[in-house]
Amino acid sequence: MNTFTNKIPDATIRRLSLYLRYLEDFGRSGIANVASGVLAERGGTTAAQVRKDLSYLGSFGKRGLGYSVAELTGVLRTVLGLDCTWRVALLGAGRIGTALFEYQPFRKRGFNITTVIDNDPCKVGSRLGDVTIRGEDDLECALRDDGTDLVIVAVPALVAQQLVDRVVAAGIKAVLNYAPVPLRLPGDVALRNVSMLVELESLSHALARGRR
Amino acid sequence: MNTFTNKIPDATIRRLSLYLRYLEDFGRSGIANVASGVLAERGGTTAAQVRKDLSYLGSFGKRGLGYSVAELTGVLRTVLGLDCTWRVALLGAGRIGTALFEYQPFRKRGFNITTVIDNDPCKVGSRLGDVTIRGEDDLECALRDDGTDLVIVAVPALVAQQLVDRVVAAGIKAVLNYAPVPLRLPGDVALRNVSMLVELESLSHALARGRR
Repeated sequence: MNTFTNKIPDATIRRLSLYLRYLEDFGRSGIANVASGVLAERGGTTAAQVRKDLSYLGSFGKRGLGYSVAELTGVLRTVLGLDCTWRVALLGAGRIGTALFEYQPFRKRGFNITTVIDNDPCKVGSRLGDVTIRGEDDLECALRDDGTDLVIVAVPALVAQQLVDRVVAAGIKAVLNYAPVPLRLPGDVALRNVSMLVELESLSHALARGRR
Repeated sequence: MNTFTNKIPDATIRRLSLYLRYLEDFGRSGIANVASGVLAERGGTTAAQVRKDLSYLGSFGKRGLGYSVAELTGVLRTVLGLDCTWRVALLGAGRIGTALFEYQPFRKRGFNITTVIDNDPCKVGSRLGDVTIRGEDDLECALRDDGTDLVIVAVPALVAQQLVDRVVAAGIKAVLNYAPVPLRLPGDVALRNVSMLVELESLSHALARGRR
């Protein structure tokens, strides 16, 4: 097993997330073994790609039997860091932030939003679910007191970078950015920018192309 | 110009969306020309990648002067299908759907959510912004009456596929999926699956790796 040492490409990690979903489906359906071709079909990729992706995790699968659903599920959960829970701070309790807070799959996967920060005085002190919203002045204290592992940014574009600079200075090493602006962070901080427009624009490109 | 004929890779289209954002920033700041290196730095990529991406659009840029911000902005808007407006139907007026409905950048980019469908009898007939929510029985009528171009799916995983099958049968050619399940569609329908968990899981992978 080289699960714990090798660097796995980002694109592979994304596919591993998808494979895990299918495997969990299979497990719930009582399926014990699955062939790479079946995983490939569900994921819109090829059996060769599935085998290559899983090869990063070590030796798996038996010729003719495929992969053990239970074993592979366990390994993927470990690789994806889902065999523990993570303390998450949400910056921004606006519409996007609130929807993320209430998005059940996060919690089911072990991502617990235990800190919420907002700069609106009307919101500070009120509750979102079981969390009391704290003001921006409390950011560093809140991250430290809470033992935050990961920060989700859902604030307006204009304030995102300055807020994240404070998050990074406070020692946070993973940031998920929903603000409609790309963030620049030091190389040792894991960052994912989620642009809701980028996906829509690749669809409008496809539509516009079809019309020409 | 081969803008209108060549197939541009998906990864390039995503980067073009980002370049467009930076170019609009530059335009607002009164910057007339921009070098590929500057676009690359903003986008976290290389100047060679920027030049390659833009080469899909035809011949641009002058040696030593870089790209004209105004010209490139216009071309990118055309390529991304942003020089017109699109009629969007939102399936699901839950928390994610409502947040998407109220997400201002969609509208600014010409994506107008003009139809909202939900299966909750308490919601049907009520309004979301200036749109009256219609029931699932009305789906096909609503798409046809509205002249819908593009559908955003924000319904629970269990009902997503069956609803999208109806959307496809109604002739829709572009689907943005926020339901936490990958959808299977015919090859002539453009589809983007947005998984809010995939990005989080690639961060937890990075964190878990850092702890080992």
